[in-house]
Amino acid sequence: MKFDLIITISLKEGMLNPEAGAIQRAIAHLGYTTDQVKTSDQFRITLDAEDKEKAEDIGRDICERLLANPVIHRYDIEVL
Amino acid sequence: MKFDLIITISLKEGMLNPEAGAIQRAIAHLGYTTDQVKTSDQFRITLDAEDKEKAEDIGRDICERLLANPVIHRYDIEVL
Repeated sequence: MKFDLIITISLKEGMLNPEAGAIQRAIAHLGYTTDQVKTSDQFRITLDAEDKEKAEDIGRDICERLLANPVIHRYDIEVL
Repeated sequence: MKFDLIITISLKEGMLNPEAGAIQRAIAHLGYTTDQVKTSDQFRITLDAEDKEKAEDIGRDICERLLANPVIHRYDIEVL
């Protein structure tokens, strides 16, 4: 069966995010005040799997071995 | 009123995505075959605005003047 994995990788709470800080300052230059800016990377992976659970297992394996650094990142997997 | 803008920036259809290609090959090395990999950047921006429409307008302005390159990127804005 065909599944779409939507994987979102973001920094864990408390981690310094220089990219977000730079974007917040740039947005201020445009004239807008923001309370907070958070950034994350999103991956949409289309693949074949026996069932939804198996697809999620594959997604978890891909996150833990490739896309996410377990020390600083958290990841969320949505199976469509 | 406080709003959260969820902005997703992705390459337009047909644009070459070397990052996605590299990830697809790396996933194959893990032993998984994928039909397609797409990547996008997501930003969560918390700000004050008069109403939902105004918040969306600010989001569009931030995309067009800062976060997205109109030639190669498409952007989606969700207001929470």
